[in-house]
Amino acid sequence: MATKSTTVQANALWQKQPKVNSELFALTYGALVGELLRDLEKTDLIQSELDRMGHSMGIRSAEEFLARSDMNCKNFSDTPEVLKMALRMFFGVAADTRSKSDDSMFSVLFSDNPLTLFVELPDEYETLEYSQLLAGWCRGVLEMLQFDCACKVEQSMLTGDAVNEISISLNQVLQEGAGEEYQEE
Amino acid sequence: MATKSTTVQANALWQKQPKVNSELFALTYGALVGELLRDLEKTDLIQSELDRMGHSMGIRSAEEFLARSDMNCKNFSDTPEVLKMALRMFFGVAADTRSKSDDSMFSVLFSDNPLTLFVELPDEYETLEYSQLLAGWCRGVLEMLQFDCACKVEQSMLTGDAVNEISISLNQVLQEGAGEEYQEE
Repeated sequence: MATKSTTVQANALWQKQPKVNSELFALTYGALVGELLRDLEKTDLIQSELDRMGHSMGIRSAEEFLARSDMNCKNFSDTPEVLKMALRMFFGVAADTRSKSDDSMFSVLFSDNPLTLFVELPDEYETLEYSQLLAGWCRGVLEMLQFDCACKVEQSMLTGDAVNEISISLNQVLQEGAGEEYQEE
Repeated sequence: MATKSTTVQANALWQKQPKVNSELFALTYGALVGELLRDLEKTDLIQSELDRMGHSMGIRSAEEFLARSDMNCKNFSDTPEVLKMALRMFFGVAADTRSKSDDSMFSVLFSDNPLTLFVELPDEYETLEYSQLLAGWCRGVLEMLQFDCACKVEQSMLTGDAVNEISISLNQVLQEGAGEEYQEE
């Protein structure tokens, strides 16, 4: 899978997407997190709710992505490129990936995070993984590609890290063909 | 104010905006409405909350808009063009406006509504004005331009109308100069 043509295709897909202003998205996401804070109060509950929402968005995004791109993702080693392309197509994010010594793991790295535009976390919420939705989204996308993965926010520029990092770790390959029906839509 | 150059400028501003995929925005907004439904239950409370959120987003959008466009909005008669431009810049929406016999009123009309992508309202929520955020947003934008207005969703394609319509009705012109400081930023 040639990285250059992937980037070209990602940009072409991105051009064709209907879009809205990132600031509006960030403010809407902020309102959603605010509602969850009011409603659920506990950080771990809020985070698992954001993760769940992201997961269901990721599944929809992957359906769309598979219908529109000619990407073929048979092996886990293809997923870093696919995730990069999908992040560009849906979030407008230019991400990089970093492989790890263990082939069943890698990291997604990016600096511009559209979820956190204008966001400053009050001290009392410093343990909240504000961008958990993105990790859930990656999990949903990968699941549709038949890879059951754990996706975790490892670093966040919102809390002072130098980069945003989501780690991806393969739990198991789901039943073969589970993702393929969507490629034929 | 020439409509053609306004459209050109609106498109140019839109090109420069950071953006995300409309589908993600729609799903995030849907999650927010879902949270409010769970939390507040009553339609009128949910709507006023969406209106309040939209209003505060509109104020931020207007700050951004005034900083980036060379738009000057001294008279209420300028506001239809400004709103059209701002809707394009933030929501990617191509709106039209229709004047009314009363000069202090007009309507904003559009067909593609990024808030309602993939949305189907269950029957029990048919009285909910799902896109109330947009009406609140218009109110916020206009308030920053020193026009205190009532903004109301009059028609919605989500509930079977042929077009989406938000009516704008001027209540009063706020203190002169209230909006100008932002134009100098």
